[in-house]
Amino acid sequence: MKRREFLGALAGASAATALTACGSNEDNAVAAASMQPQQIYKWKMVTTWPKNFPGLGTGANNIAKLITEMSGGRIEVKVYGAGELVGAFEVFDAVSQGNAQLGHAGAYYWTGKIPAAAFFSSVPFGLTAQEMNAWLYYGGGMELWEEAYKPFGLIPNPGGNSGTQMGGWFNKEIQSVADLKGLKMRIPGLGGEVLKRAGGIPVTMPGGELFPALQSGALDATEWVGPYNDLAFGFYKAAKYYYTPGWHEPGTTMECMINEKAFNELPADLQSIVRNAIKVANADMLAEYTARNQQALHSLINKHNVQLRHFPDDVLKALKTLAEEVVEESAKADALSAKVWRSQKVFKEQVMQWTNVSEFAYLKARNL
Amino acid sequence: MKRREFLGALAGASAATALTACGSNEDNAVAAASMQPQQIYKWKMVTTWPKNFPGLGTGANNIAKLITEMSGGRIEVKVYGAGELVGAFEVFDAVSQGNAQLGHAGAYYWTGKIPAAAFFSSVPFGLTAQEMNAWLYYGGGMELWEEAYKPFGLIPNPGGNSGTQMGGWFNKEIQSVADLKGLKMRIPGLGGEVLKRAGGIPVTMPGGELFPALQSGALDATEWVGPYNDLAFGFYKAAKYYYTPGWHEPGTTMECMINEKAFNELPADLQSIVRNAIKVANADMLAEYTARNQQALHSLINKHNVQLRHFPDDVLKALKTLAEEVVEESAKADALSAKVWRSQKVFKEQVMQWTNVSEFAYLKARNL
Repeated sequence: MKRREFLGALAGASAATALTACGSNEDNAVAAASMQPQQIYKWKMVTTWPKNFPGLGTGANNIAKLITEMSGGRIEVKVYGAGELVGAFEVFDAVSQGNAQLGHAGAYYWTGKIPAAAFFSSVPFGLTAQEMNAWLYYGGGMELWEEAYKPFGLIPNPGGNSGTQMGGWFNKEIQSVADLKGLKMRIPGLGGEVLKRAGGIPVTMPGGELFPALQSGALDATEWVGPYNDLAFGFYKAAKYYYTPGWHEPGTTMECMINEKAFNELPADLQSIVRNAIKVANADMLAEYTARNQQALHSLINKHNVQLRHFPDDVLKALKTLAEEVVEESAKADALSAKVWRSQKVFKEQVMQWTNVSEFAYLKARNL
Repeated sequence: MKRREFLGALAGASAATALTACGSNEDNAVAAASMQPQQIYKWKMVTTWPKNFPGLGTGANNIAKLITEMSGGRIEVKVYGAGELVGAFEVFDAVSQGNAQLGHAGAYYWTGKIPAAAFFSSVPFGLTAQEMNAWLYYGGGMELWEEAYKPFGLIPNPGGNSGTQMGGWFNKEIQSVADLKGLKMRIPGLGGEVLKRAGGIPVTMPGGELFPALQSGALDATEWVGPYNDLAFGFYKAAKYYYTPGWHEPGTTMECMINEKAFNELPADLQSIVRNAIKVANADMLAEYTARNQQALHSLINKHNVQLRHFPDDVLKALKTLAEEVVEESAKADALSAKVWRSQKVFKEQVMQWTNVSEFAYLKARNL
């Protein structure tokens, strides 16, 4: 490589300090003027999950690893589990205020600040994982999510997906809507509101507190994620019936938010690396859950004598009707909620038709 | 930043030439020994698709763009459409021989060289897109694919997914298996063999030749991808019936192969960038197809009077039985095919159960 080419090749990445350190002939001066010293960015990622929690916590770790790897160490990311640097539900504020540069969470935790946030994680009887990615990346969803987080100095990104979750753990069988009356169930967000209208008592509680609450009878039921995570929490020791499908979270998008100011300080290549590391992790988590849930479900059923149950059709129908009411009402919270739901609703009506014609028709054929 | 930190920060990226150019005190000598001059890599990507073809060709472009962006221009990738540098079906050899560093294609085009290759793209009545990613990344699929391509000096990567494809365009209705007898249909690979056993005449033909063949009656039917691509090719002008589901390609993985020698010459950060750019594109293409197929299908039905049809259950059942035979026989082609199919089959039996309990159960509930 010729010297001129070499200097060009350094393109914004590197050697100004070294060059100016050895005096200045004309060539070096030119190079020094056009180049920045290479900087190491030390970033923190706070999360709403227990450190290294399978799927969710390891998904956050995955983002940190990919950023460091692709940047050749120019960005180092230290990951903090819930409670290590800030509490689970303080993640949004910590990243908004710049106390951490990245935050891994679920958007529906922030509906108190941004009512529209629920639409970016999961909506009862809403989009599947594949459909969510389609809406976010190719249906206008990302632009709306960016608009929602902009006032908080945050850049949102889909940072993982659980796929269709399970309906939850119950200490009794659910044979009709009447069986939901008085049921104390941990189920947050819009799903919780649906349960309430069906006569149940929704409770919000962090994941780590669920098992003792279920065991003591403080809860009659709880949803969490799916077999891979639910096995890890040991719910099978406290409740016998495991219900499907997770009508309340059919394809939950996790999020990885970036502090906007910290992001803007990065050179363009590192900005792209951060964005795309998160995009890889978004897809990766879904692949991991898809691969691991069945093994865990098998173990729950065959080793731990869990009773797998499908919600009866009339219960699902009733929940769906209530869900439509709840979602339409929640879309009236403010102008942004209305705009986001309008976009997602139109997209959902279209994409459902395609899913029914393609993947759903195929799954029926495969099961013939 | 301290001088020592700065030198550390250059980590493999940069300034050896500059440093050695200004004489050598001890520090510089140490730095020079541990650092490489930054190099620009000019790569070529050959593809089996028409240049800029929606979804497939633009997916290849996407990989090139992401690599250049994340590497800050340290890798430049020039993309060639089919026939520009080499013919569509010469992509494998071109990358194997190092005439191009990247190749975007479908693994099932190479079954003549590697009988097991079909299992890495799509198998009749096999895995969906989400299940394919789960098998490849978390079920041992990638390790087997790497083993299959290693003797050719190639590193395989999933480089896009079409989702569940359509069953194809037919110039008559398919009401029973008898209607498949004597049917001349473009349908390559294992799907073609299934059609043959059902009495049809499978034909292999590049995408660009399909429309005239269908119009002239040289073909009675053809499959291609799905509404977004099929609309672009204008098949609706030559055949009236559009069948679902694409039992022969339920979630086709495209591939982006890398020349191993070229890859090994890259520093670790660029290796990670190349791998992850492809991983992003793998997820991105599925999101794009999912978002755009329904609009195209709507236009086909409402603007172009296409008749959407579902294959009757007894036709699907017969095709499924034949597909099982064909796949089992193709797995006997060589030891590697047997090993790959054993892995995918075990995974499929597990993951189908999970899909049925989760997403399929949910889709049924959403349609109640």
